[in-house]
Amino acid sequence: MPQEYEIIIVGGGPAGLSAGIFIARQKVSCLLISKDLGGQLNLIPKLENYPGTIMSSGPLLAKTLENQFLMFGGEMIYDTVERVDEVESGIKVKTTRSEFTAKAIVVAPGKVPNNLGVENESAFVNKGIHYCTKCDAPFYQGKTTAVIGVGAYLLESGILLSRMASKIYMIYKGGALGGDKEMIAAIEKKENIELVPQSSVKSISGGNNLQTITIVDNSGTEKVVNVDGLFVEMGSKINLDFIKHIVKLNTKNEIEVESDGKTSHPAIFAAGDASSIPYKQIVAACSGGANAGLSAFNYVEKLKGRPGIRADWKKTIGDTVFHY
Amino acid sequence: MPQEYEIIIVGGGPAGLSAGIFIARQKVSCLLISKDLGGQLNLIPKLENYPGTIMSSGPLLAKTLENQFLMFGGEMIYDTVERVDEVESGIKVKTTRSEFTAKAIVVAPGKVPNNLGVENESAFVNKGIHYCTKCDAPFYQGKTTAVIGVGAYLLESGILLSRMASKIYMIYKGGALGGDKEMIAAIEKKENIELVPQSSVKSISGGNNLQTITIVDNSGTEKVVNVDGLFVEMGSKINLDFIKHIVKLNTKNEIEVESDGKTSHPAIFAAGDASSIPYKQIVAACSGGANAGLSAFNYVEKLKGRPGIRADWKKTIGDTVFHY
Repeated sequence: MPQEYEIIIVGGGPAGLSAGIFIARQKVSCLLISKDLGGQLNLIPKLENYPGTIMSSGPLLAKTLENQFLMFGGEMIYDTVERVDEVESGIKVKTTRSEFTAKAIVVAPGKVPNNLGVENESAFVNKGIHYCTKCDAPFYQGKTTAVIGVGAYLLESGILLSRMASKIYMIYKGGALGGDKEMIAAIEKKENIELVPQSSVKSISGGNNLQTITIVDNSGTEKVVNVDGLFVEMGSKINLDFIKHIVKLNTKNEIEVESDGKTSHPAIFAAGDASSIPYKQIVAACSGGANAGLSAFNYVEKLKGRPGIRADWKKTIGDTVFHY
Repeated sequence: MPQEYEIIIVGGGPAGLSAGIFIARQKVSCLLISKDLGGQLNLIPKLENYPGTIMSSGPLLAKTLENQFLMFGGEMIYDTVERVDEVESGIKVKTTRSEFTAKAIVVAPGKVPNNLGVENESAFVNKGIHYCTKCDAPFYQGKTTAVIGVGAYLLESGILLSRMASKIYMIYKGGALGGDKEMIAAIEKKENIELVPQSSVKSISGGNNLQTITIVDNSGTEKVVNVDGLFVEMGSKINLDFIKHIVKLNTKNEIEVESDGKTSHPAIFAAGDASSIPYKQIVAACSGGANAGLSAFNYVEKLKGRPGIRADWKKTIGDTVFHY
C-alpha cells in the first residue's frame, strides 16, 4: 500500500521548500520528495539579490528554508520521482524506492543538470559520475578526478577539485578556458590540474565504480585515462518526463501555471523554474511556491467541504475589513 | 525643473523595496518615494512565514530590504505621492514637497490605514492623530491618549499604549472587546486603561496639536475628553487616487498586472497588495516587486535601443545553454 499524504511536493529547491512552508504551516500532512536539498541554490556561493538576506549564499538559504519547513511539521525524503499518475484517491507519485498517494501535489522540480550523454552514464551516477562538484568534491580527497564542462561551472569545479583531489583533468571543447580572468589565472598555477583543451569524453567504463574515461580531441585522437571520479558541469535543463502526460506544457516545455500556481490538472500545482513564470529568480520561485502551496491547501480543504484560506487574507471584524 | 530619474518607485514596503533592489542592481538611477519604511511590515512583530528568515520581524525585514536597496545605489526619500501623469519625457510624479520625472515607474503603494472619517482629521495627522500605534506610541510617554479601533489592532494598541501613556481610553463600537483572550485579560488588569464600549469618536479639535475628542455612545450621549494623542486602529485599504486615471484597475480597485508586473500603461509597472495578485503575502510582494522592477528596467533599456535582460537569465557559452 502506498503511503498517504494530503499534499506531496516534488522538488527541494526554493519553490518546493517555500510551498512546504506555507502548506505545513496549515497543519496538513505534507511530504517533500527531492533528489537534493536546494537544487540550483547549490550553484550560488554568494547571494545578494534575494530580498531580505544580506551576505548570504544559496546553500545557506536552502538550509534556512528547510529549517522553516521542518519546524512547521513538514516531512522530507531524498528520492527521485519517476512518474506521477491520476488514481481514484487523487494522485500517485512513484519514486525510485517507493510509492505515495496524495490529494494534491505541488510540482517544483526546477532544472536538472545536463547529462554528458555517453553510454552507461546512468549506471555510474554517484559511483564515479557526479553533476555537482560543490556537493560531491569532498569524496575525492587524494584521488584522481576529471571534470568536463563549460564556462564558470567548469572553472569553479576545477578550483574546488584542486583543493581536494591529487590530480584533475579539466576537459573542454574550446581552445582556451573562458570566464573570470582571476579564476583562470588561479587554475593555471595549480600543479595538480592538467588542462585538456579541444576535447570531449567519448566513453566511460568501470566495474561497480567508474574506472576509466576515453578522451577524444578535435583531431579524433583518443586517450584512455584512469580516474576515480568524473564531474560533469554542463549546465542544466528542465526535465518533466515524469509528469508531462497529465499537465499542459507550453512551447518552452515549462508547466503552464496561472498566477496562483494552478495547472491544467485540478489537483496539480506548480512553481519554480520548471513553470511558466517570466523571470526565473529565486524570489519568484519562493513566491510561486507559496502561491502553489496555498492553492493546493485550498483545493484539499474544498474536497473536505471547507472554505479554505481566502485569497487575500481579509478578515472582517464587526463592520471593518482587516487585511493581513 | 523636476528632478529626473530613470525609474521611480512609489512605495517603501516589501514590493517597492524589492523592485528597488533589482533595479538599482542594474546600475540605473532609481528613486524610491514612500511615506514610511516597510509599510504593512510594521504591523508584524513576529514573522515566521517569509521564506529564508527565521526568528524575524516585519520591521527587521524592512530594514534589511532597505540596506540591500541602498547598498546597490538606490536613493530613497520620505514624501507622499499626490499625482502621477504622463508627460512628454515619460512619467511625472508629483509629491507633497516636490516633483520628479522618470522614464518608467513601479507602483507599489500597498494598503494604507483607514481614516477615522471626522472633520479636520488630516490637519492633526502626526500632531495628535496617529495610525500606527507600534510606530508612534513612544512619543506619548506619560501622556493622556485614546485609541479607537477594532479587533486585534485595538487590543495590541491598548497594550502598547498602557506601557507608555499615563492614561488610555479604549473606544470601540461593540459591547465587549473581541479577540485573543489573554490579551483581553491583560487589558482588563491595566489600571491606566479605561474601556469605552459602544462608542465612537464624533469630532476632534485643538490648536496646533490635537487637544480634545468628543466621544458619543450608542444612546447619543456625548462626552468631551482631553487627550494628547488619538490612535486610529481601523485596519487598512488600497488607495490609488494618485494614479487611477492612467492605469486600469480591476473590480476590487487593484491595479491589473500581468505576471511580469506590466499594467495597462507601457511605462507603469505595479506590484504588491495594491496589484491584482491572488495571495497577498510578503513573499508575493517581493517577487512581484522583482518582476515589476526587471520589467521596468527592460522597458527603459528598450527605449535606449538595448536588448534588456533576458527573461530567464539564460546564457549561452559555446554550444551549451546556462540557466541562472
